[in-house]
Amino acid sequence: MPLLVMKFGGTSVADLARIENAAQKVQREFERGYDVIVIVSAMSGKTNEMVGWVEQTSKLYDAREYDAVVASGENVTAGLMALRLQEMGVPARSWQGWQVPINTTSAHGSARFISIPRDNIDAKFAEGFKVAVVAGFQGVSAEGRITTLGRGGSDTTAVAFAAAFGAERCDIYTDVDGVYTTDPRVSSKARKLDKIAFEEMLELASLGAKVLQTRSVELAMRYKVRLRVLSSFEDTDETSGTLVCDEEEIMESKVVSGVAFSRDEAKMTLVTVEDRPGVASAIFGTLADAGVNVDMIVQNISEKNYGTHTGAVTDMTFSVPTNQVARAQKAMEDAKAAGLLAYDDLITDTDVAKVSVVGIGMRSQVGVAAKTFAALAAENINIKVIATSEIKISVLIDRKYMELAVQALHDAFELDRP
Amino acid sequence: MPLLVMKFGGTSVADLARIENAAQKVQREFERGYDVIVIVSAMSGKTNEMVGWVEQTSKLYDAREYDAVVASGENVTAGLMALRLQEMGVPARSWQGWQVPINTTSAHGSARFISIPRDNIDAKFAEGFKVAVVAGFQGVSAEGRITTLGRGGSDTTAVAFAAAFGAERCDIYTDVDGVYTTDPRVSSKARKLDKIAFEEMLELASLGAKVLQTRSVELAMRYKVRLRVLSSFEDTDETSGTLVCDEEEIMESKVVSGVAFSRDEAKMTLVTVEDRPGVASAIFGTLADAGVNVDMIVQNISEKNYGTHTGAVTDMTFSVPTNQVARAQKAMEDAKAAGLLAYDDLITDTDVAKVSVVGIGMRSQVGVAAKTFAALAAENINIKVIATSEIKISVLIDRKYMELAVQALHDAFELDRP
Repeated sequence: MPLLVMKFGGTSVADLARIENAAQKVQREFERGYDVIVIVSAMSGKTNEMVGWVEQTSKLYDAREYDAVVASGENVTAGLMALRLQEMGVPARSWQGWQVPINTTSAHGSARFISIPRDNIDAKFAEGFKVAVVAGFQGVSAEGRITTLGRGGSDTTAVAFAAAFGAERCDIYTDVDGVYTTDPRVSSKARKLDKIAFEEMLELASLGAKVLQTRSVELAMRYKVRLRVLSSFEDTDETSGTLVCDEEEIMESKVVSGVAFSRDEAKMTLVTVEDRPGVASAIFGTLADAGVNVDMIVQNISEKNYGTHTGAVTDMTFSVPTNQVARAQKAMEDAKAAGLLAYDDLITDTDVAKVSVVGIGMRSQVGVAAKTFAALAAENINIKVIATSEIKISVLIDRKYMELAVQALHDAFELDRP
Repeated sequence: MPLLVMKFGGTSVADLARIENAAQKVQREFERGYDVIVIVSAMSGKTNEMVGWVEQTSKLYDAREYDAVVASGENVTAGLMALRLQEMGVPARSWQGWQVPINTTSAHGSARFISIPRDNIDAKFAEGFKVAVVAGFQGVSAEGRITTLGRGGSDTTAVAFAAAFGAERCDIYTDVDGVYTTDPRVSSKARKLDKIAFEEMLELASLGAKVLQTRSVELAMRYKVRLRVLSSFEDTDETSGTLVCDEEEIMESKVVSGVAFSRDEAKMTLVTVEDRPGVASAIFGTLADAGVNVDMIVQNISEKNYGTHTGAVTDMTFSVPTNQVARAQKAMEDAKAAGLLAYDDLITDTDVAKVSVVGIGMRSQVGVAAKTFAALAAENINIKVIATSEIKISVLIDRKYMELAVQALHDAFELDRP
């Protein structure tokens, strides 16, 4: 029997009407002949309510108790969804994490999957319960305690079940109708993609296109789970949404698939750093120890004499998330005070944005970087930092030019054309 | 180590402030040197909210899914209570039914205990987790599915744990400060009892004094679990509340301990029933099959000729809960139409009330019935039906005289005096 995994997020099961709407989508796949594993989130707002209670009750809370409380939201949705499906004549039952069991590490609040044995659910499939409604976001530790996977964990649960059960596809129903070439709010020319490669989706997800959780895409890529992102609020069929798949499934891919952007980046420059072996390690090791996520890094070596320095000196520029600027500054100042690091000044620019063009076609195509820089130059947009990977070119620019840059790049690579 | 079971109902854990208040009571017992098992209900309103969702989702709902949804309320409270206790420095952890495990039958929605193995909780006690916060009202079936015990099941959970763990006492914290000689809203002379025997409490509970669930008192009586009912909203100490215990623990018991009453009774009379062997069985068998709970039964045999009947005839009077009158009427009419039963008329009187005097002292004391009837007669209250047990005398009277009857009996037996 072919098997499908269908995942519904919090807004897709926010109330009883939406649960019914989601159940209709499950019913349709069941009537097409699929065994279905449905992964559900908590009704939207419920998890936040419970997190609030936990945080008000205990500041430094025991993560095991946090998990025991917070996981209950998904249990409620799973039961209600099973009931709704039964009411429609669909043979469904609910599964809580410990009933499957979804075995995880005991890293409460951010647990990782160890195994998802198929036996229990397969036995119920064999008895005729063709639809298993599984509470997402949760599992059980070897100690028999409830664990959660962290926010967005239901996407990851869905992909893990698709991998464990060899699902034909994993459909992620959400409040958008697919993955776009860029954010439609920034460019009216944004176009929904029919297909996108895992690698591209990963770059888009981590660059701030918040459709799928990065970890779920990584897991899908590793196990080659075909993911489909589609809207739970529209009529959908086999061709709806965007398929996230192995690049081999994408016949003729464009050089660039999308333009991503992020406003949450800040640029920091250490001015006149003594240029000696190990200095980069000293800077970024210090930042890592302070829990700062450094993204782009650029080093400008200069042989000039600067102030009191006489040897080779350099400027070191890097970008960090805006909300980690204060922490990064403190880490650098502490390191300087402790004599671990010598620099003249630390300049922070929070008025920047990162814009990236992403596409697996770049690998075999030259000139993408040149075309990117030309498109920005034509709009008189100054590039502050450049970083590239195999399938991505990112630039840091003044934030006020962000929308202009996205539109210019979208036009330059003709992303509005199918 | 002596062990105490403490149970907090829905109003006692209705919000975070009340959970903190309850936690302080637990902390005090812990600091006195007790190991404590805390049984918690869902925050008041939460269970009703979830029951509403289930009923809106599915009319003839699958009780297994109902249980999976509804039991989640207690899990939330258990986690929050454990967190609050930890914050106070009390080594607590939460336990869900399946983690203990609380083994029950698979009669979903009204499951019964099979066993509560001590191993898991004892192991944690030994590790130093001296307070086990257990989600009440729930268990797990042999099939590994979540069960619930039905409304009020948390009281029963508390008593079952007290029995399983040999607790010194089972303290039921609720929104009243004990068991009274009668309802203080009906008689201002009502007095709180320091002690009451299990048998008396059972009669009072089943007669409508809704302090403790009948089933929990039955279980306490069977396992000789000392129950204490006390207020979660007042400062309490070792002497607070009412102790429900074996009668041997009550040194000098009064003849009558309390006056109970119920407005939810209706009187039904089958007029001119053919009096032959098996007729009572035909009537009450039919009612039982229809799910009607018959309480009091009186038969008046008469040798008169009535209408078309020529042999011995009788009037059969019985009382049923008001909300079962329609069902009882239909059952009687159907039986008559089917020729299973012959009677001339069925008279229903819903304008009645039941008043009962209860006391284990009655067993050894004559004249209680006479004193009861005299007290009512002195107020010109006509008695419609009388029923007695070893420790109880119940009368059915016009509802408008109910409060007067309660006050008269309370005075007659001097219940306001300690």
